[in-house]
Amino acid sequence: MMKMKKESDLIPPHYRIVNISREIEQKGIKIIHMELGDPELDTDKRIIDTMYEAALKGHTHYGDARGLPEFRDAVSRYLNRRLKLDLTRDNVCVVPGSKSAIYMSLKTLADGPAKVGVVEPTWGIYYSFIRDLGYDAIPIRLKYENKWQVREEDLKDIGKLDFIAVINPSNPTGVVWDRESIELILEKATRDDAYLIADEIYFELIYSNKKFISFMHYNYEKTVGLYSFSKTFAMTGFRIGWIASYDKDIINRIARGYQLLLTNVPEFIQYAGIKATDLDDVIERNRGIYMERTYFLVNGLKRLGFEFVEPEAGFYIFSKVPNPYNDSYQFALDLLHKARVAIAPGTSFGDYPGFIRFTTALKIETLKEALKNIEEFMKS
Amino acid sequence: MMKMKKESDLIPPHYRIVNISREIEQKGIKIIHMELGDPELDTDKRIIDTMYEAALKGHTHYGDARGLPEFRDAVSRYLNRRLKLDLTRDNVCVVPGSKSAIYMSLKTLADGPAKVGVVEPTWGIYYSFIRDLGYDAIPIRLKYENKWQVREEDLKDIGKLDFIAVINPSNPTGVVWDRESIELILEKATRDDAYLIADEIYFELIYSNKKFISFMHYNYEKTVGLYSFSKTFAMTGFRIGWIASYDKDIINRIARGYQLLLTNVPEFIQYAGIKATDLDDVIERNRGIYMERTYFLVNGLKRLGFEFVEPEAGFYIFSKVPNPYNDSYQFALDLLHKARVAIAPGTSFGDYPGFIRFTTALKIETLKEALKNIEEFMKS
Repeated sequence: MMKMKKESDLIPPHYRIVNISREIEQKGIKIIHMELGDPELDTDKRIIDTMYEAALKGHTHYGDARGLPEFRDAVSRYLNRRLKLDLTRDNVCVVPGSKSAIYMSLKTLADGPAKVGVVEPTWGIYYSFIRDLGYDAIPIRLKYENKWQVREEDLKDIGKLDFIAVINPSNPTGVVWDRESIELILEKATRDDAYLIADEIYFELIYSNKKFISFMHYNYEKTVGLYSFSKTFAMTGFRIGWIASYDKDIINRIARGYQLLLTNVPEFIQYAGIKATDLDDVIERNRGIYMERTYFLVNGLKRLGFEFVEPEAGFYIFSKVPNPYNDSYQFALDLLHKARVAIAPGTSFGDYPGFIRFTTALKIETLKEALKNIEEFMKS
Repeated sequence: MMKMKKESDLIPPHYRIVNISREIEQKGIKIIHMELGDPELDTDKRIIDTMYEAALKGHTHYGDARGLPEFRDAVSRYLNRRLKLDLTRDNVCVVPGSKSAIYMSLKTLADGPAKVGVVEPTWGIYYSFIRDLGYDAIPIRLKYENKWQVREEDLKDIGKLDFIAVINPSNPTGVVWDRESIELILEKATRDDAYLIADEIYFELIYSNKKFISFMHYNYEKTVGLYSFSKTFAMTGFRIGWIASYDKDIINRIARGYQLLLTNVPEFIQYAGIKATDLDDVIERNRGIYMERTYFLVNGLKRLGFEFVEPEAGFYIFSKVPNPYNDSYQFALDLLHKARVAIAPGTSFGDYPGFIRFTTALKIETLKEALKNIEEFMKS
């Protein structure tokens, strides 16, 4: 049970950066937001128009927590087409963002206090949820030296797990996992009969020629795949994504959790999602934009002496904290106050006080301004 | 911690009716839905247009979990105007429906396992959430004989509480509480230093000339008022409401719970809400429509011999189960299968196996058809 009196324990540090930056902004000072994964990009008008038409047609009522049959057909067809899978509507369920999907999966699938293997660096929200639910978090720590891939040594001395939580392509490192990484995790999950929560929300945004291998390609029944419109289609504020699993019972249990808590995702928003699944041109365009921005920031930060494994996907750079800093939170705070640039400290992604995460999905002119501010700060 | 393997324990019986009725509908059989509070009424086009414009303007990004400042200003102004209160934006927080607001209040305000006094008959979701959180539910049972008002005898032998949960105007009875009811509850809350979760979402929909007394009129700091656009403005599917409290710390704690779980309510939906707060003509129109429908069903059910305290507000009728039935769930199941009318069994509202709830917010022709089917079923 959550004891929110201590909610400061639960909130990943980058949310503290978010909240401090909002306070600064209320004084009229401009902050450049590189701490959240919110692209500076508009949602395609065809998506918004479809939402509007659906609302006018009366899709303004309570609905099935699993989602509209039309939505479930659309997203399963989309995954089948893009990832060569074989899903039906019964294998998917709409969710109001992948954050809640992680929470609902952990909450509704466990039989009791669970052991959750968290492959890190990862999105720190996992630790918040695991603590909230009274579960045990077991970090599986990947190494910078291994370019953040999973290697056998990383799984040594990890006891039996009930869940394994992974993100591929990775947030925060931007690395795309190789087959060895995927299969090591799958073997561990199979051995332990553990649920595998596989966040694959960046799979459309790969810039290297490395091939994406979905965990859903393997018919491991206890995999829960997480997908989202937020990044691919610049729809962060719509709060919509979906989960997929070959086990229909998993889908139904998670859906019942949502039915209790939230009833359903607005159906007019589901229609926006349905439209998006048809817009491959938007995927291509947005991938191009994100790639340009990512490489622009990669080159800019390299020039300033930042060290990191170069991202191949998504829109983050997970860099070492520059000397003489050794505390990423202090560095993030100083950068916020002095350079007016908000970034996420490495402690938001596990035990990485020596790292920081930059979001690259901002306009080139915003990135230029951020680099200028950072450069001045570094010299001072 | 929720053990969802037993989620059947958690789900109020009327959701089982919902789910069974969806299965029947998938066979192509038409069901009349009187089990949910979903009005057969369109959302005003001006509200939908405003949402569309906001999305086109780029309100499609992550935002403050408390809501847009403009939204918080609008709903506090609205409550101040309609209920003669004195709230500011810091006293309110947007929520994705009052269901989750109840959950988040219970979850984030407690220091540990809490005792929750539930004034019943009430919306059964309270019991689901209390069980989910590992709290204790203490029923405070009102009496049919007292026309569902709170009387001193109802509070006898109720030990010290951490929360008291009330709904006024009542769901499911449609009764508007008198001053004695309000003040008895407030005295108990004050004595126990308990949080008072006051669901007032039907306050605009009162048909009798009884004056509505908001719990927010009393400056009891630990009151959390729940409000919604769903019923008043026929916006159930938008999933938006708000909470109000004179204690800003309460607002912030609940908001942080939402930040973790859901990030925020889509900002374009908040703009729909802002627009609604200006549309007093819609409130008047919808109140007229709901009143006509409610009295139509009141008269129709009376004619068929159903016995109930006549509702003064909202859109429900909480009736005794007709003879020879004594199990409301069985009656609801039979009515669903034989008369194709879905209703909510009394066990969804506490320990009321002798009662059933009808939703009145359907079109007159739908209500006519429902009455005809029920009449035939009663004769058979």
